[in-house]
Amino acid sequence: MRLLLFVVALLCSTTIYSQNDEAVLKNIYKTSLTNGKSYEWLDYLSNQIGGRLSGSVNAELAVEWGEKELKELGLDKVWLQPVMVPKWIRGAKEYAYVKSSSGKTTSVNICALGGSVATNPLGVESEVVEVHNFKELEQLGRDKVEGKIVFFNRPMQADLIQTFQAYGGCVNQRYKGAVEAAKYGAVGVIVRSMNLRLDDLPHTGSMTYDDLPNSKRIPSAAISTNDAELLSSMLKLDNTLKFYFKQNCQQLPDVKSYNVIGEITGSEFPNEYIIVGGHLDSWDLGDGSHDDGAGIVQSMEVLRLFKETGITPRRSIRVVMFMNEENGLRGATKYAEVAKQKGENHIFSLESDAGGFTPRGFSFDCSDAVFSKIENWKPLFKPYLIHYFEQGGSGADVGPLKTKTNVVAGLRPDSQRYFDHHHAANDTFDAVNKRELELGAATMTSLVYLFDKYGIAPISHKNELKD
Amino acid sequence: MRLLLFVVALLCSTTIYSQNDEAVLKNIYKTSLTNGKSYEWLDYLSNQIGGRLSGSVNAELAVEWGEKELKELGLDKVWLQPVMVPKWIRGAKEYAYVKSSSGKTTSVNICALGGSVATNPLGVESEVVEVHNFKELEQLGRDKVEGKIVFFNRPMQADLIQTFQAYGGCVNQRYKGAVEAAKYGAVGVIVRSMNLRLDDLPHTGSMTYDDLPNSKRIPSAAISTNDAELLSSMLKLDNTLKFYFKQNCQQLPDVKSYNVIGEITGSEFPNEYIIVGGHLDSWDLGDGSHDDGAGIVQSMEVLRLFKETGITPRRSIRVVMFMNEENGLRGATKYAEVAKQKGENHIFSLESDAGGFTPRGFSFDCSDAVFSKIENWKPLFKPYLIHYFEQGGSGADVGPLKTKTNVVAGLRPDSQRYFDHHHAANDTFDAVNKRELELGAATMTSLVYLFDKYGIAPISHKNELKD
Repeated sequence: MRLLLFVVALLCSTTIYSQNDEAVLKNIYKTSLTNGKSYEWLDYLSNQIGGRLSGSVNAELAVEWGEKELKELGLDKVWLQPVMVPKWIRGAKEYAYVKSSSGKTTSVNICALGGSVATNPLGVESEVVEVHNFKELEQLGRDKVEGKIVFFNRPMQADLIQTFQAYGGCVNQRYKGAVEAAKYGAVGVIVRSMNLRLDDLPHTGSMTYDDLPNSKRIPSAAISTNDAELLSSMLKLDNTLKFYFKQNCQQLPDVKSYNVIGEITGSEFPNEYIIVGGHLDSWDLGDGSHDDGAGIVQSMEVLRLFKETGITPRRSIRVVMFMNEENGLRGATKYAEVAKQKGENHIFSLESDAGGFTPRGFSFDCSDAVFSKIENWKPLFKPYLIHYFEQGGSGADVGPLKTKTNVVAGLRPDSQRYFDHHHAANDTFDAVNKRELELGAATMTSLVYLFDKYGIAPISHKNELKD
Repeated sequence: MRLLLFVVALLCSTTIYSQNDEAVLKNIYKTSLTNGKSYEWLDYLSNQIGGRLSGSVNAELAVEWGEKELKELGLDKVWLQPVMVPKWIRGAKEYAYVKSSSGKTTSVNICALGGSVATNPLGVESEVVEVHNFKELEQLGRDKVEGKIVFFNRPMQADLIQTFQAYGGCVNQRYKGAVEAAKYGAVGVIVRSMNLRLDDLPHTGSMTYDDLPNSKRIPSAAISTNDAELLSSMLKLDNTLKFYFKQNCQQLPDVKSYNVIGEITGSEFPNEYIIVGGHLDSWDLGDGSHDDGAGIVQSMEVLRLFKETGITPRRSIRVVMFMNEENGLRGATKYAEVAKQKGENHIFSLESDAGGFTPRGFSFDCSDAVFSKIENWKPLFKPYLIHYFEQGGSGADVGPLKTKTNVVAGLRPDSQRYFDHHHAANDTFDAVNKRELELGAATMTSLVYLFDKYGIAPISHKNELKD
C-alpha cells in the first residue's frame, strides 16, 4: 500500500502545474508568433546599427537604442548601469598569403583575433610549423618553433552532436595559442577558424596574452577552414614555405559603456529577482544577429510578452542587456557586483546566447532538488517541441550570479548551424529565421512565467497550486 | 509484491535493446558525420542535374544517376521499375500585373500551379474577388464570381508549431481552388503561396481539375506572399482593379519513367522487406534540394552506412527512389502494386520527405502494440537529440504500402524553415546544411537497424535480446 501511495505520488508530481498554465503558455506562443516584436527589433539592431564591438560607436548606439525601446515598453524602471570596457579596434583589413619555396604566392583569408597586437607595419613573414595541440607544440620545442609562425590546425570534432562541445574542445588554440607559442619564441600565430564546415570565412574571437609583457606579445589571427586545409596540404609538400600576414589592430584605453536594464517590479515579492538577458556587444565582422542580437531581442520580448498577454509577475522581472561579453565580460561582472552590494536576491537568471535557431530547451545550473521541480514543468512544453531540460551549464553573463541556492540557465537552441556563423562576416540578419527567433522568445517567456509563479522553493510549497 | 514486480517489469521494458545497440548507433552517427556521402550526392543531384519534374529530361538524368550510384555501392540488386508518369511543362515564364482603375499597372510575382492549363495566348485580365475559403466563395455565388478571377488568400496559420499542420490547413485552396471557382464561372484562380514568411517568391505545387471537361478548366497560379498582401490591400482601396496574368504551361501525354531501387538481401529473413525512400522527382523552380533531394540521398546513405559500418541485415533492406510524388504519385502506386502482386512482406517502410533539416524524430503509422515496442527504443536516440516518436502520419510514397500489421513511418526534421523553400525557386543546395542532412541520414539508419534487428513482432519475441 505504501508502495502504491509512492507510485501515485510519483504520478502526481508530474502534474505540478495547473491547466491554466497550459492556457497561459499557449497564449504566450501565439502572441510571439502572430504579434511578436523580436524580429522587427533584430532588423533594426542588425541592419540599422550593425556590428557593435565593445567601446565602438555602434555599441553606444545600441545602448541608446536599447534604453529607448525599453522605455517605450512602459516598464516600471529602465536604467543604464555604467561599466568600463576594453576598446580593441581592428583597423584596416588584414592581408595574408602563403609563399611557396619557389616564390609563388597564394592569398588566404584571415582576420585578427580580438585582443591581438598588430604585426609590425610591414607584416610578418616566416616559415610555419603546424600543430594540433599544445602538447605537440611542447614536443617541437624552441629549436623547431623559434622565429616561426605556429599554425594551430585542430578541427572541431564533427561527430559530437552538440556543437558547443566541439567548440569547447578547440577554443583553447584560439584563446591561449599566442601565450603558448610565445614561450618557444614564435613570431606569430595562425589558428584554424572554429567552424564545422569548410568555407572561406575567418572567424574571430577573444584571445589572451595573460601577463606577457608587451615586448613578448605576438600577433594572432584566424584563418578560414578552407585556407587552413590549403595551408596544411601545401606544408606537406613544401615545409619551408613562408606565411605572410599583416594586421593593424590596436588595444586602446578602456572606455565607459553601459549595461541596459529594464524591470517590471513584482507584485508580491518585489525583492526576488528573475532576470533574462543576452549581450548587447558583438564582434565586428558581421552584424551580430545570432551572437547575440537574437538573445537581446528575445530577452526584451519576454518582458513585452508579459505585458502583452496580461501577466502580472509576482516577482521582479528584469531584462539585462549585458555589455562586453565577447572580450571582457565586464558588464556581467559589474551587474553581479552591484547585485551583491545591494543584496538583491536573484532567484533565477536566464541567458540566451547560443543563436536564434529553433529552441530545443534549456540547461540549468542548480541543485538536484530544484532541478526535480523544474523537470515537472517539462510536459507543459511538449506541444512546442521543447524536450531538452538538462543540468549543467548556463551562460557567460549569468554565471557570476550563481549562488548555492539559486538557478541560472541558458536557452538551448538547435546548434547545428551556429558555428557556420559564429564570429564571422556571415553572422547577419538573413541567417535568422523569424519563426525560430519567435519560438525562442516564447519558450523563454514560458519558463520565466513558471519560475515567477512557482519560485524555486521545494515542490511542497503551498503557493504552487493556486491559480 | 506483485505491484513491485509490475514496476520492475515496467522499468525493464524501457531497456529492450542491448548495450551493443548503443555502440552501433554511435558508430552510425560518427560515420555519417565524419565520412558521409549524402552531402556530396546532394551536391551532384542539385547542382549538376537540378530541378527534375516528372517526365523531364532532368528526371531521366536523375534516374540514370541514381542507378549508377546504387550500382557503385555494391548492393545485391539494383533495378529500374518502369512507370508511366504525367508530363506537365511550364513553358515560358509567367507574367502578371495588377491594374488599378486609373490604369496604373504593378507587376507581381506568380507561377503556374502544376497541372494548370495555360491562359489564352493573350493572357487573362479581369476583376478580382478575394476569398479565404470555399465557404466564402459559395456565399458570393455565381453573381459575384462569374467572369472574375478568384483570389484565395488564406495565410498559413503562424501559431501552429508544426508547420505541416499549417500547410494542411491551407493547401485545399491550391489543390481544389480551380475546381471550386470554376463552379461559379470564374475565369482564373490566384492562390496565396503556401509560405509562412513574407517574401517575393511564388510557390508552385499540384492542383486538380477532377473530371472537369477541358472547356471548363481555368488557369490557376500561385502569387508570392508579399504580392498577396499587396493585392489584398489594393483591393480594399479599389475593388474594381483588374488582375492580368499569362502563363504558358501544357499537359503533354504521359511518358515512361522509373522508380530506382536497390537492395541488400537479408541474411536470415530475405522475404521480409524494409524500405527507405524519398522521391526523385521535384518541382522545376528550384533544384529540389530539400524537396526531396535530401530524402533521396539520406535513403541512399542508409544502405551505404549499413555497408560502411559492417552491419549485415537480417532482413532485406531496400532503397526506393520514387518517381512522380509531386504531381501524380505514380511511382509509389506502382511500387505498392508490384509489391502486392509479388506478395512481398514489407514490414517497415520509412520515408524522408520533409526537408534536410535537423532531425527531431519520426511519426509512425502502426498499431498501438507495435508503437509500444518502438517507443522502447527512444532512449537510444537521446544522445542524438532525437525526441519525437509519435503515432500518426508517415509519407505520401510509403502510404500505399500500409497494411493492418506493418509499420510505415516518416522522418520528422525541424519544420520551421521548410515552407520558406517548399516548391519555390529558393529550394536550392545552399539552403541545406551538411551536418543537418547527415544527422538525418544517421537517424534513419539507426531506426532501420533496430527494425531489422528486432522486427515488428511483440516484445516478448525471443530473438530480441540476442546480440
